Amino acid sequence: MTPSSHSVSVVAGGAGFIGATLCGRLLDEGKVVVAVDNFSRGQRDYLSGVGADERFHLVQADLAVREQTVAAFSTAARFGQVIEVWHLAANSDIPAGVADADVDLKDTFLTTVEILRAMKAHAVGVIYFASSSAIYGDLGETELHESIGPLLPISNYGAMKLASEALISAAAESHLSKACLFRFPNVVGVPATHGVILDFVNKLIASPEVLHVLGDGTQQKAYLHVSDLVSAMLAIRARDLTTKVEVVNIGPLDQGVTVKWIAEQVVARVRPGAAIQFGSGNKGWVGDVPKFNYSTAKLQSYGWQPVLGSVQAIQRAVDEVALQRQQ
Amino acid sequence: MTPSSHSVSVVAGGAGFIGATLCGRLLDEGKVVVAVDNFSRGQRDYLSGVGADERFHLVQADLAVREQTVAAFSTAARFGQVIEVWHLAANSDIPAGVADADVDLKDTFLTTVEILRAMKAHAVGVIYFASSSAIYGDLGETELHESIGPLLPISNYGAMKLASEALISAAAESHLSKACLFRFPNVVGVPATHGVILDFVNKLIASPEVLHVLGDGTQQKAYLHVSDLVSAMLAIRARDLTTKVEVVNIGPLDQGVTVKWIAEQVVARVRPGAAIQFGSGNKGWVGDVPKFNYSTAKLQSYGWQPVLGSVQAIQRAVDEVALQRQQ
Repeated sequence: MTPSSHSVSVVAGGAGFIGATLCGRLLDEGKVVVAVDNFSRGQRDYLSGVGADERFHLVQADLAVREQTVAAFSTAARFGQVIEVWHLAANSDIPAGVADADVDLKDTFLTTVEILRAMKAHAVGVIYFASSSAIYGDLGETELHESIGPLLPISNYGAMKLASEALISAAAESHLSKACLFRFPNVVGVPATHGVILDFVNKLIASPEVLHVLGDGTQQKAYLHVSDLVSAMLAIRARDLTTKVEVVNIGPLDQGVTVKWIAEQVVARVRPGAAIQFGSGNKGWVGDVPKFNYSTAKLQSYGWQPVLGSVQAIQRAVDEVALQRQQ
Repeated sequence: MTPSSHSVSVVAGGAGFIGATLCGRLLDEGKVVVAVDNFSRGQRDYLSGVGADERFHLVQADLAVREQTVAAFSTAARFGQVIEVWHLAANSDIPAGVADADVDLKDTFLTTVEILRAMKAHAVGVIYFASSSAIYGDLGETELHESIGPLLPISNYGAMKLASEALISAAAESHLSKACLFRFPNVVGVPATHGVILDFVNKLIASPEVLHVLGDGTQQKAYLHVSDLVSAMLAIRARDLTTKVEVVNIGPLDQGVTVKWIAEQVVARVRPGAAIQFGSGNKGWVGDVPKFNYSTAKLQSYGWQPVLGSVQAIQRAVDEVALQRQQ
């Protein structure tokens, strides 16, 4: 078997929270997997489950930098034929991106610019992109389905995800053969790098008597477990849809749970009896969207359903994150 | 009267096709106008009508470059209180941007990044942005109104206009007080820097016997004269709408004219009797959208109507462009 006969999947942000899970699944499919990460948030440790596989390769590169991206793709091409790119590289700290627009500009958007440029140079035609429900902005009670507009994100994170969608869409007209824009909900599980559960667990460990919650706790969001998220993406890919640019909201079927309920779960699991103190307002931070009515009708029409709803996803993730912090 | 008591309008791309007309109107309002341009497409000549006005100032700067943008805003602040920014700076050559994604990235999008950053630093709260119908992509017969999605542009130009909308929307959440996203149709008039009329006139002057048209001529689009476009923006601004981020399609009330008809008008005006030869396909170039069904219902609901429909706008612009080329 010559090297070029291998099918290579490139996973940008492959050492991150979702990337680490995805890499394992792609290896299960028999792919050669080249994970690319700059380790700003991703960690080598997260890949302990797959690192020993001889079909797995980890490349350190900052995909917002042209020369490093070109080099990373050249490295990937040495392991076989690159048939697809999974672009999960992004800033995941939304408040940091609101404070300094350069964070999302670079980590969330310029990565898209450079990945598309490298794909054109290497004639790689298929991209799967981790977009976000944040592209919809704050539309209150309006049902967020794929065919509404205008899209007015309220964080630079959401803005740069939408900008990436737009650039991928234009690239599909000129040099891509297939693009899937997966609009992620809030995703929970391990290895946790950010998010409400890790935040609460960390706070309780630092200050065991009382958990201070940003906002009044009434924010309600849908949560998907990372295992279900990756399953959904692979299921959509397997359907081999004929649309050149496929846009799909991914999420559970329910309308989610409140921050208050999540706080109670974390306290019960990590520090039973600790008090919970709420702030004011229904936004945790600038750029936070207080309530989602997130439609997954399109995803369901493809016959996919998650194993875990928001309640079960949070409960499992609280256990997993608590365990992760104890290790 | 101290300098700081003057109200200053900054017009980014102020020496361009639309910027030149806008500057004149803002001076008519009594504003101090600071036009900023890098002269990549704009020209000092275009401002001959306003250049003598002592309330008009022209600053040369590349607004995609941070230091130059900071310096341009500091210069503007010396003339008074900057109360609003009109952001018209952009690449206007769509095919060039398809060939090299860096063109729209820099001229259309990074200008937005740096202008917003400078507005934050100078506490300027109001932006009027020249977005585009190109953000909708190619949706065939679907009526393009402001509340449809997904937005899948097919050119890097459209993508970077959508990216700019997204970033402005996020900035409105954190530091702007008001943002209007005007989605421009095809705009005609003088000083013409690009576009189908100038293209046809130039071709006929170079080769008077036959006009070669890209595509089969059936592409149908709505056209607005630049005088009406600027009137529409000022009319929307004058309504002082309460929405923080206002998104409006601007265009004529009709559904437009075909490229074939435009070619006939240009031939009749410039080289009567010249033959017209059509290409094949209904796209002029990659990134061209063959047919628009562009809704201006929202704009009409604000009580605004153009003076010229697509037919009259084209006819006037053909006369104007022909005259411009003869001078």
